[in-house]
Amino acid sequence: MTVAEATRPVPAEAATPVDGAPDYVRNLPPYVTAKPASQVQMAPGVTRLRKMASNENPNGASPKALAAAAAVLTGAATYPDPFGSELKAALHARFGVPPESLVIGNGSSELLELAARCFMRAGDEAVYSQYSFIGYPHAVKSMGGKGVVVPAVDFGHDLPAMLRAITPRTRLIFVANPNNPTGTLLAPEAITSFLEQVPPHVLVVLDEAYTEYLEPAQRMDSFGLIKRFANLVVMRTFSKAYGLAGLRVGFAAAQPQVAELINRTRLVFNVNAPAQAAALAALADEEFLALSARGNREGMKLLQDAFQKLGLPYIPSWGNFIAVDLSSAPGGLQGVNAQLLAAGFLLRPLGAYGLPNHLRITVGLPEDNAALVAALTACVKP
Amino acid sequence: MTVAEATRPVPAEAATPVDGAPDYVRNLPPYVTAKPASQVQMAPGVTRLRKMASNENPNGASPKALAAAAAVLTGAATYPDPFGSELKAALHARFGVPPESLVIGNGSSELLELAARCFMRAGDEAVYSQYSFIGYPHAVKSMGGKGVVVPAVDFGHDLPAMLRAITPRTRLIFVANPNNPTGTLLAPEAITSFLEQVPPHVLVVLDEAYTEYLEPAQRMDSFGLIKRFANLVVMRTFSKAYGLAGLRVGFAAAQPQVAELINRTRLVFNVNAPAQAAALAALADEEFLALSARGNREGMKLLQDAFQKLGLPYIPSWGNFIAVDLSSAPGGLQGVNAQLLAAGFLLRPLGAYGLPNHLRITVGLPEDNAALVAALTACVKP
Repeated sequence: MTVAEATRPVPAEAATPVDGAPDYVRNLPPYVTAKPASQVQMAPGVTRLRKMASNENPNGASPKALAAAAAVLTGAATYPDPFGSELKAALHARFGVPPESLVIGNGSSELLELAARCFMRAGDEAVYSQYSFIGYPHAVKSMGGKGVVVPAVDFGHDLPAMLRAITPRTRLIFVANPNNPTGTLLAPEAITSFLEQVPPHVLVVLDEAYTEYLEPAQRMDSFGLIKRFANLVVMRTFSKAYGLAGLRVGFAAAQPQVAELINRTRLVFNVNAPAQAAALAALADEEFLALSARGNREGMKLLQDAFQKLGLPYIPSWGNFIAVDLSSAPGGLQGVNAQLLAAGFLLRPLGAYGLPNHLRITVGLPEDNAALVAALTACVKP
Repeated sequence: MTVAEATRPVPAEAATPVDGAPDYVRNLPPYVTAKPASQVQMAPGVTRLRKMASNENPNGASPKALAAAAAVLTGAATYPDPFGSELKAALHARFGVPPESLVIGNGSSELLELAARCFMRAGDEAVYSQYSFIGYPHAVKSMGGKGVVVPAVDFGHDLPAMLRAITPRTRLIFVANPNNPTGTLLAPEAITSFLEQVPPHVLVVLDEAYTEYLEPAQRMDSFGLIKRFANLVVMRTFSKAYGLAGLRVGFAAAQPQVAELINRTRLVFNVNAPAQAAALAALADEEFLALSARGNREGMKLLQDAFQKLGLPYIPSWGNFIAVDLSSAPGGLQGVNAQLLAAGFLLRPLGAYGLPNHLRITVGLPEDNAALVAALTACVKP
């Protein structure tokens, strides 16, 4: 026990457990989610709400994945496989990462939290970029860590500046590629060069939640890099292109000693049985994945073309969403978003991300995208 | 930042992130689960494995719960309700606990971990009983807390001794009622008197995972106690009598300021959509719950009668399991367990719980219980 710990004061007699809780827990901001659909007030005559707010897959999920989840429900009284053995074997077959290098998580969100929990103590630092996923500060701050936010360049990661932000207290760095909520992409060489310069005791979390939306030629061999860098953990999710956000499954890949530490810390039964079964089947349905990526590319082009025609600046995106700058539109972001909401479009204003003029739009089905363009045009050129 | 934190050494250049991980994480023991069914070697001629090892419900789950889970699968691409609003409303209606007092968890295991994470810092102490759930030390130690184990009396909690174990560093006390793995029960008055004496800044986790197996007259009004004690959190699970272990849902009830702190710290999407739907429907199926409790009482009586006839000491249990002492049996626990395993019975030896002679048997269906008694009789009186 350290001196500081031994002298931690006892709360006064009248105190409650909350008074004695660590400051970093008491100061955690509540996490911002999309406005619940039930709370949306639509204009008279608008009957359908199109949710394009949470980067969910508008194609749903693979029917094979849903059938697999349904099939295991009869065994719901039995604990799920605590090791995710079948899913790990399938991930091994698909990506070449051996089971001992894998951690299955309750979404990649849980894996982010576990990385902070395993590798940081209160007072340690984690480096991440301005305009990156709001889950990073939550993971870090809920462990009493200090988030070091590095200003973005062109809405994306400034890797050289992130290297310079490393101090003796740094234990974790988060790099998202593509990045959410801005959609920016880093070149493979930039990431490799970055990894070569990060001190070997600092863990780099490479969050590839949106990687399946990239053209194959744009993808990097991130799993190959794991063999080279003992301080790299790659995270993937089944919530986006695989369409399983409602089931909560993600995975992390790292060298075995890193994976083992995370596995030892996680809940034994962290991923439930239908989620494991669905992920396993989703992995095998490459056709569904290809369809999702193709639909996304077409929708993305439609939206970008429309923004250009309307003279609205946007951040070129490699994800399944795009952030458009509405500062020049009549009424600005607030006005446009309110009108689009009334018209039945639930979108994500990025104020909580420090982008008060940007509205993030998840690419929808062709019909949703066309309807959105029409509604946005009516807002901008009434 | 404290002095101790500021002087925390930087790992050497050659170090990996694992070398720099907190000692309390690196020293975490792996969690012990039941032997996977696939690894069991049964004797020739034995074709069916009866799993009576994990206190699962042998009746399965409510068909209404399974239908509800299946029905939401079509929406699997959408994130689950982060607030568990419908489930909370149903819990409110059923137990009188308002939504702002509730936390929905990924099994009550997650809630145990969150209690430690919210209310303890590294170096703080948590008090729990000898022979209590192995999840308590995991939750405490994975946060760098110190577990203070209080010797049991008659295999159950010694509440006066637990009170005496409180020090200025104590932040958490775990009380399980009924207790797993021993099945002991505390009287309501003993728990109330205990709560009256615990300092108000120390949080008491009352883990009632098995409460549905009690006769109504044996149950205490634990949710009523929440109004009186700001330092009480009651935890329940859908994994046992509700038969939803494979889906992972539990809940915690406490005064709003405690519930709010835990809610702020948990993963936003910690419980998936089919799990929420199943729990909601399971709560409404009182018939299934009554059937499970009735079957358990009958099976428990059959097993206890058999142990008495065989002269085997056992710990009277109020759960859906019973621990029998095999020190007097030929071959002792090891010998008997090996024979029962070969005969197709997967049970739980309690060595990891510090009970090297006790075998924990989950009450099964009538046919399983009868078969087990026959097999055990063959072992003990060959």
